[in-house]
Amino acid sequence: MTDPFAHDKQVAAVASAQFVEDGMSVGLGTGSTVAFLLPALAERRLKNLRCVSTSPATSALARKLGLRVDTFSGTDGVAHLDIAIDGADEVADSGWLVKGGGAAHTREKAVAAAADRFVVVVSGNKAVDRLTPPVPLELAQFGLASTLRRLGGVRLRDVPISPDGGVIADYMTPFDDPAELADRLANTVGVVEHGLFPPSMVSDVVIASGDRVETRTLR
Amino acid sequence: MTDPFAHDKQVAAVASAQFVEDGMSVGLGTGSTVAFLLPALAERRLKNLRCVSTSPATSALARKLGLRVDTFSGTDGVAHLDIAIDGADEVADSGWLVKGGGAAHTREKAVAAAADRFVVVVSGNKAVDRLTPPVPLELAQFGLASTLRRLGGVRLRDVPISPDGGVIADYMTPFDDPAELADRLANTVGVVEHGLFPPSMVSDVVIASGDRVETRTLR
Repeated sequence: MTDPFAHDKQVAAVASAQFVEDGMSVGLGTGSTVAFLLPALAERRLKNLRCVSTSPATSALARKLGLRVDTFSGTDGVAHLDIAIDGADEVADSGWLVKGGGAAHTREKAVAAAADRFVVVVSGNKAVDRLTPPVPLELAQFGLASTLRRLGGVRLRDVPISPDGGVIADYMTPFDDPAELADRLANTVGVVEHGLFPPSMVSDVVIASGDRVETRTLR
Repeated sequence: MTDPFAHDKQVAAVASAQFVEDGMSVGLGTGSTVAFLLPALAERRLKNLRCVSTSPATSALARKLGLRVDTFSGTDGVAHLDIAIDGADEVADSGWLVKGGGAAHTREKAVAAAADRFVVVVSGNKAVDRLTPPVPLELAQFGLASTLRRLGGVRLRDVPISPDGGVIADYMTPFDDPAELADRLANTVGVVEHGLFPPSMVSDVVIASGDRVETRTLR
């Protein structure tokens, strides 16, 4: 299936690669937009880049393109990133994001949280007035039936296991206030991580529609 | 090493077993007080009890005593408990608890959250004016160095891996307001679960000092 937004994603990805400079430690997201980012980043031939990755697919492609990928796991992992770049499922005008359609949102959020600057890169169709379900979730196996019962309105994915052993699901109930839902999900026992990212985590949003690139700087 | 509070724990455990009735689904905690609860519960010879357990040690002892232990994992696990009974590291006058000295706090919180009634059972030395560190944490392996850097003041355990693959550590910084710290920990990316339990999760606290038993009913 051809992605009708492939061109927009590529334009946005090339624009976002310009945020990276020599010597930076860089967090790499996961997904179709990041697949355009990696060659754009490799082509810049920056010196002493050090990357961490949010999925096996990103690691494999990055290494194939000659990018150095270090571990982000354990006490010996990279503790701080200068920048992280990733796509999103939806970006609202408020700066809130939803991520995790690709089931990697727990790792993507961990990488974003470690970075001084978090650049979100999307095709124009993903910029929305307000966020809508699904909101991806990673749930603990232990107590899963109870967690589903307490949350309500959650649909399990067909391939529900994350790389870290959690259960991937989607919260399907429409919501008005992403901050309120994020707080409820963060405080629900059994929710390992959710796909809502607050504006406070985001430094820049790069949106491409056709050949037009809009960059929103949040901080 | 002889536990100087063994008698108090036993008295409290026997008192808490009286909360359980025929036909209930029961969540069983982990630790030295629960080791006294299990025989007290088995001796009551209640009909159609159905238990779930928070650790392999509790499962093994419960089954040895003839208690039925069902699974709490996955979509086929028990979704709702009538009651859960567990010990605590400290219980404050406010009703806030710290748990997780035994590294099982993620599972213990999952079981407590599934229960209509959560009974906390302690020897009198664990009832305190206000909670003090350590506050046990379960952290994700992915991004661990970054999580430790952002939290600050965290000490890893010598045997740091939980049954679910997380990293067990302790938050060591003194704190005034458990609600504030619990909120910060819940919203820190990389923290799977923390050992602070709010009063809203607790129905009853059973405290034994010598042969005197005090029961505080919170709801």
